[in-house]
Amino acid sequence: MNEGDLFLIGDVPGFTPQISRLVSMMNYVRHTTLSAVAGLEVGELDYLHDVQSNSIGALLSHIAAAEVGYQAATFYARDLNGEERNEWGAALDLGERARREIRGRELDYYLSRLEQVRMKTLAELGRREDQWLEEQTSFGSGQSVNNYFKWFHVFGHELNHRGQIRWLRRHATARS
Amino acid sequence: MNEGDLFLIGDVPGFTPQISRLVSMMNYVRHTTLSAVAGLEVGELDYLHDVQSNSIGALLSHIAAAEVGYQAATFYARDLNGEERNEWGAALDLGERARREIRGRELDYYLSRLEQVRMKTLAELGRREDQWLEEQTSFGSGQSVNNYFKWFHVFGHELNHRGQIRWLRRHATARS
Repeated sequence: MNEGDLFLIGDVPGFTPQISRLVSMMNYVRHTTLSAVAGLEVGELDYLHDVQSNSIGALLSHIAAAEVGYQAATFYARDLNGEERNEWGAALDLGERARREIRGRELDYYLSRLEQVRMKTLAELGRREDQWLEEQTSFGSGQSVNNYFKWFHVFGHELNHRGQIRWLRRHATARS
Repeated sequence: MNEGDLFLIGDVPGFTPQISRLVSMMNYVRHTTLSAVAGLEVGELDYLHDVQSNSIGALLSHIAAAEVGYQAATFYARDLNGEERNEWGAALDLGERARREIRGRELDYYLSRLEQVRMKTLAELGRREDQWLEEQTSFGSGQSVNNYFKWFHVFGHELNHRGQIRWLRRHATARS
């Protein structure tokens, strides 16, 4: 991403117009997530505010895992396969399992996973046309959902957890 | 908003195509914010997790205040005027002043302010064309920012704080 374009939602080389706007928003959100965790040490990434909290490391993994889930759903019209469930299950589920399994890692570990997942997303989005965003499937409840919504949801989900990460960071760094 | 269209980002009657997509996203985010606070009592809205936390009531006011700020910036090309600063200053600033001034109100108070602000936003957006989203101004730093970004930022900001509201709600309701 060109830093000069960080606050412009618009055309991005290699993407169709609507997909460009979506990618602009995803890029900006990711930029702010990375800022929110810059410089964190292992102890801060593992910090648990209380017994029901998730660590910043777990939330970073969760952000990447959700994106993997929406890749499967929108690009390949399937659920996560066994191998993906194995790799991302704890991050998807959060809670007890994530508190046990996702810890002791340096920041770079989380960042490289986020980046690898995002590279695949951008490669797949770059192969699609705007009309693809309008394609709909149904939730079990019968409500229709289109691909635009699903990718909006991916960055909305990231923003939601970035809000929690910022809050946790203030507390984790105050105590460390 | 038609509940059946909640998960469709697309055309909305009364708005141009790009503005429609923005409005779809704003509608969905607002729907989730309202869900996050549904049924909260005064004591939960005022709950302070610790000395540096903001209450859910203050965060709801902050969400509305930020929207008022971006209305002034994008629709009228100005900063908040004295009357608006007076009404929204504590909500914009959060922190100590908000902890002191924003409390003791029922949920309906916050919801009606959110709705009044939003109605004005939608009325103004309905009078504009997609090209307006591309109009740029500059930050003090010299970086360009367009109207699309500013309204994306309004709902992104709301999502960020909704993440904090959900977290606070779990803790406020557990203790009440």
